[in-house]
Amino acid sequence: MADHLEATTETVQHVCNMEEVQGGDEGGNLLSKKQFSEQNAFNLVHDELRIAIKVAMPSPKRLMHRFLENTKEVLYPDDPLRQFKHQPASRKCFLGLKYLMPILDWVQDYKLSYLKSDLIAGITIATLAVPQGIGFARVAGLPPIVGLYTSFLPPLLYGLFGSSKDIAVGPGSILSILIGSLLRENIGPEEPPDSFVRLAFTATFFAGLFQAALGVFRLGFMIDFMSRAATIGFISGAAVVVCLQQLKGILGITNFTKKTDINSVMHSVWADPDMWNWRTAVIAACFLVFLLVAKKLSNQKKKLFWISPGAQMASIVLTTIFVYITHAYQHIGTVGTLKKGLNPLSVKYIYFHGPYALKAMKIGLIIGMINVMETIAVGRTFAAKKNNKIDGNKEIVALGIVNLTGSCFSCYISSGAISRSAINFDAGCKTALSNIITATLVMITLLVLTPLFHYTPNVILSAIVFVAVIGLIDVKGAHFTWRVDKLDSLACLGAFFGVIFLSINAGLLIAVSISVAKILLHVARPHTAVLGIIPKTSIYQDIQHYADAIQIPRILIIRIDAPICFINANYIKERILRWVDEKEEYNGQKLIVQYVIVDLTPVMSVDTTGIYELTDILMILQKKRLQLVLAGPGIDVMEKLNSANFVHVLGPQWLFSTVSVAVAECTSILEAQEESSDNYSKAVA
Amino acid sequence: MADHLEATTETVQHVCNMEEVQGGDEGGNLLSKKQFSEQNAFNLVHDELRIAIKVAMPSPKRLMHRFLENTKEVLYPDDPLRQFKHQPASRKCFLGLKYLMPILDWVQDYKLSYLKSDLIAGITIATLAVPQGIGFARVAGLPPIVGLYTSFLPPLLYGLFGSSKDIAVGPGSILSILIGSLLRENIGPEEPPDSFVRLAFTATFFAGLFQAALGVFRLGFMIDFMSRAATIGFISGAAVVVCLQQLKGILGITNFTKKTDINSVMHSVWADPDMWNWRTAVIAACFLVFLLVAKKLSNQKKKLFWISPGAQMASIVLTTIFVYITHAYQHIGTVGTLKKGLNPLSVKYIYFHGPYALKAMKIGLIIGMINVMETIAVGRTFAAKKNNKIDGNKEIVALGIVNLTGSCFSCYISSGAISRSAINFDAGCKTALSNIITATLVMITLLVLTPLFHYTPNVILSAIVFVAVIGLIDVKGAHFTWRVDKLDSLACLGAFFGVIFLSINAGLLIAVSISVAKILLHVARPHTAVLGIIPKTSIYQDIQHYADAIQIPRILIIRIDAPICFINANYIKERILRWVDEKEEYNGQKLIVQYVIVDLTPVMSVDTTGIYELTDILMILQKKRLQLVLAGPGIDVMEKLNSANFVHVLGPQWLFSTVSVAVAECTSILEAQEESSDNYSKAVA
Repeated sequence: MADHLEATTETVQHVCNMEEVQGGDEGGNLLSKKQFSEQNAFNLVHDELRIAIKVAMPSPKRLMHRFLENTKEVLYPDDPLRQFKHQPASRKCFLGLKYLMPILDWVQDYKLSYLKSDLIAGITIATLAVPQGIGFARVAGLPPIVGLYTSFLPPLLYGLFGSSKDIAVGPGSILSILIGSLLRENIGPEEPPDSFVRLAFTATFFAGLFQAALGVFRLGFMIDFMSRAATIGFISGAAVVVCLQQLKGILGITNFTKKTDINSVMHSVWADPDMWNWRTAVIAACFLVFLLVAKKLSNQKKKLFWISPGAQMASIVLTTIFVYITHAYQHIGTVGTLKKGLNPLSVKYIYFHGPYALKAMKIGLIIGMINVMETIAVGRTFAAKKNNKIDGNKEIVALGIVNLTGSCFSCYISSGAISRSAINFDAGCKTALSNIITATLVMITLLVLTPLFHYTPNVILSAIVFVAVIGLIDVKGAHFTWRVDKLDSLACLGAFFGVIFLSINAGLLIAVSISVAKILLHVARPHTAVLGIIPKTSIYQDIQHYADAIQIPRILIIRIDAPICFINANYIKERILRWVDEKEEYNGQKLIVQYVIVDLTPVMSVDTTGIYELTDILMILQKKRLQLVLAGPGIDVMEKLNSANFVHVLGPQWLFSTVSVAVAECTSILEAQEESSDNYSKAVA
Repeated sequence: MADHLEATTETVQHVCNMEEVQGGDEGGNLLSKKQFSEQNAFNLVHDELRIAIKVAMPSPKRLMHRFLENTKEVLYPDDPLRQFKHQPASRKCFLGLKYLMPILDWVQDYKLSYLKSDLIAGITIATLAVPQGIGFARVAGLPPIVGLYTSFLPPLLYGLFGSSKDIAVGPGSILSILIGSLLRENIGPEEPPDSFVRLAFTATFFAGLFQAALGVFRLGFMIDFMSRAATIGFISGAAVVVCLQQLKGILGITNFTKKTDINSVMHSVWADPDMWNWRTAVIAACFLVFLLVAKKLSNQKKKLFWISPGAQMASIVLTTIFVYITHAYQHIGTVGTLKKGLNPLSVKYIYFHGPYALKAMKIGLIIGMINVMETIAVGRTFAAKKNNKIDGNKEIVALGIVNLTGSCFSCYISSGAISRSAINFDAGCKTALSNIITATLVMITLLVLTPLFHYTPNVILSAIVFVAVIGLIDVKGAHFTWRVDKLDSLACLGAFFGVIFLSINAGLLIAVSISVAKILLHVARPHTAVLGIIPKTSIYQDIQHYADAIQIPRILIIRIDAPICFINANYIKERILRWVDEKEEYNGQKLIVQYVIVDLTPVMSVDTTGIYELTDILMILQKKRLQLVLAGPGIDVMEKLNSANFVHVLGPQWLFSTVSVAVAECTSILEAQEESSDNYSKAVA
């Protein structure tokens, strides 16, 4: 082998001696004689070449085994059943039950010291939950009492079935505007008046069903369908829309558009400025300042987490008393009568068949996915802060149960909103008991305290909603995105402006489309590189990025940096052929490429279309009297090449484990050719 | 540096001396003492470590420059304006005109010897074009004369604007069944009778518009949206559907379903077997055998390419004469009166606004894309055989012009069908003149010969269509797909059964969905690998696939084989953390991981979500008192990491150009720690 090695290095040197040294202009010099003698010395001791690292020929794995392996990795990447290993049957049952109802888990470890924190957190959230529940229900276009129902039962259920300690469940601003928007699109003015609420319950039911199925079948990975940038854009846009909607309550406008886009809203607002109610405007102005200051304080000093919820509750109390005393309810809108009592059964209102059921399924799918995405994002954020892990699929199942059951008890879709969960976190909640405490307090409100809201002015609820959502407009995140990744910014801006100028659904569609298109585009135009050798090493690098890398004469080395599949196979083929043409053109007559080495190391997989195109490349190169050489194919790729008989067509002698070994072989062949050509010339002369 | 090197190797040896050698069960031994001394010897001379290959810090490129570069690669990968370089202005104009109308190109090089081949090809295709034109128009549910119009003008236009020599343009079977199916879905029985044809023209108009735009904006790469396997499934399924539709003509059934799925068809066929027409069945039986044999002969011997078209023409002539003489037209359906004369203007029939226009746009989009996909696939196939290249976008523009203009002259959508083009190819066509010759002959037919088809029985047209499409059922391709790539097969079978059991559109949707889902799934679950070193080299390989590769104690090396983007960032993070846990678990107390080296060499890009997750990983590892190390980041990745300030947060000293260098650094730090710990123990003792 040492002789072979010597021969090889001599060959490379010889090849260089034959050609003129040319300077490269498109990055990529050719090895000069001096450099080759240095490479010589390196190669002589380079053990890499001595070891015949064979290209591993894969043994045929059973199809079922391979399928199970891959399915396991796709669906169970977090290996949730790890804890079940090596356990007796009875323990497995208990573990299973604990898995489904995490309350059994934390209840047995509960310490009394936790109670104080959970109590404080629960009470704090409850002071928020009541006004926000009423406010968000109005955003969704639903009766205010539905908002209170949704602030009671879902947190209770979540406390039983959810595993995240920090998520505080209840009506969410984004989902409320989304469901309201979707429902309005599907319910025309000529439909019966109760169909709106009925469709809301039905959509929530199907959302819950869909979520439960998603979680049970471990398809939770599907929620990563929108880039974070697109999410920032979508949520910020939705927040702006919700804020604009509050102008109705703040200015006391009676004829307000049902649409959400900024043009319609501005039209409604400026249609008749005389109709603005100065009373509501004044109340709004005062309390908005008050609430925003309180919120800023809470945000800046975590210890003052209670200030913002307290301010909101105080505002409600003050304005309610004020309206009652001054009889201002004759001039401004108030909440009105809220029925006393807990959640009534609503199963009979759910459409299980008919055209509404179909509409509800579509709406349920959309809100279900956004619900999951929002809640899991919140869960992950807090889990990271506490260095916990969150089992996404388990949470999704919990959410599904919450929504399924809730829809049967007059609740609409609820989620773990970031603002509410942040306060829960800052309040130092220790377990999901905080949710149960919140639910209890809302229950008391429903049973006893609802008459107190009779004179609560709508304007204060609008102010509370405004303050709640204004924090969702993530300017910092958008700026970060712009700084780091311009294409991501496009998704962000597209989603934002789509939501504001078109509609929520349009913005969502834009967000998802740009996100998916980004991926497809990236796969469709993969990175490819021409490689050159770094002298005195056996490293081959992209000649465009490494000025030291120099090309080897007569050998073109191309690395493909992506899997070869139908979406890019044709492009890759044409790219390779274009490089071959360029090298031939550039080099004119003198340096003719004889070997095209394709480095497949980063190519993790190839599909049937990829194989068709590789075969095409082989044929086209053969017609040009070039030899295709493949280097570094992985196991999966080798299997496919084998099954497709491509290895046989190419010839197994043209497969190498690394680029270095391939180059060594090609250069030795070139030398042999040169020698015999010399001998022939000598014989003729 | 040599001292450093010696120190490094001693360190590695020392580290190994400290730990017990453990055998690996999940693939991956640890380096033993003996192996390390060998590695020692290797490292001492390994120049790679001597050279400080710095991680290239990218210089800030101007945004516009980067944007233009990327856009150029996405939209103009084939660099079509290469020929315009270094040309005077007048020549550029001429080249531009030739680019738009390729006829100017080949006309000036035309030799008389080509004429014979083109004439033969043109005549052969014309003998096919007439019966197939009538037959496919009936498949689409359009009047037979429209089929003849579509066999005249489109080939003529294509001869002027198209550049592929081999594509023979005219009505296609797949597009006919597709457009027929889509039109039937959108036109109910209560609509005016001419709306069907009008919608067909309108859809063709919008398809042409869409195609022209696609080609002009160089978005032709979008046609690679269906894998070849899915295409095979879809086209085979559509062929089966077309064959089933011909049972109407073959059995002479009057009440035949308008639906295309196999259940409805079988129901129509078997509803009343007494109503079958024995006459048509007999004619069909005889001529089907005749035509199939002729087709097989043509396929097997390329020189006998004329036999199949000739047989088809002969069948028509014979049956027409037979029906005329025997007055069989009283018992079996015939073509009837075909208006004489060329294509009438049909602009007034096109819906430019209104609900039909909207429907037509949707239909036009679908058929436009399939049209492009089919025609380009055919063009590429033949270009490869002749070692030509095909400018996809130019062809798409030509197709757009053909359909746009054709729709204004009573033509419906036409394409370059594979069977017709194959005959064109076998007949030895030399230029696109063959299309023009075909058009001329069809023109003569329209002007003079249409009365001859009055007594042509429908059954013979059904037989001709049957024989034309049966060859599209690609069993061989489906079997190849099954053998090579099971997931691709899923797409193939899904498309096939979707078309047959549901509808053409459903099958198409399934085909596209599975194709896109495959890509998304692949990106969402990228391959990741734990690396080990191959002894006596500096190569690091996947320990699962290379039994020789052995892990280095205290250092976990993970390679990520895909770009990190929103769809997989969370998965990658969880995967890395799971490996860290596993290594800690597996190794118990003895071998604690201290360094986690993430090999980013295959990671071509990272987006903002990826950066968030990398930051998360860094934080979580820090909490576990592990150090994150990044190796081999590319230029694009470095840019993003820089802009996001991640480099600063990580610390630039933890970025290395290769895994080897990273390992060397980590091992030297480990040794230093061990030394000081020894000294401390000695001091204390």
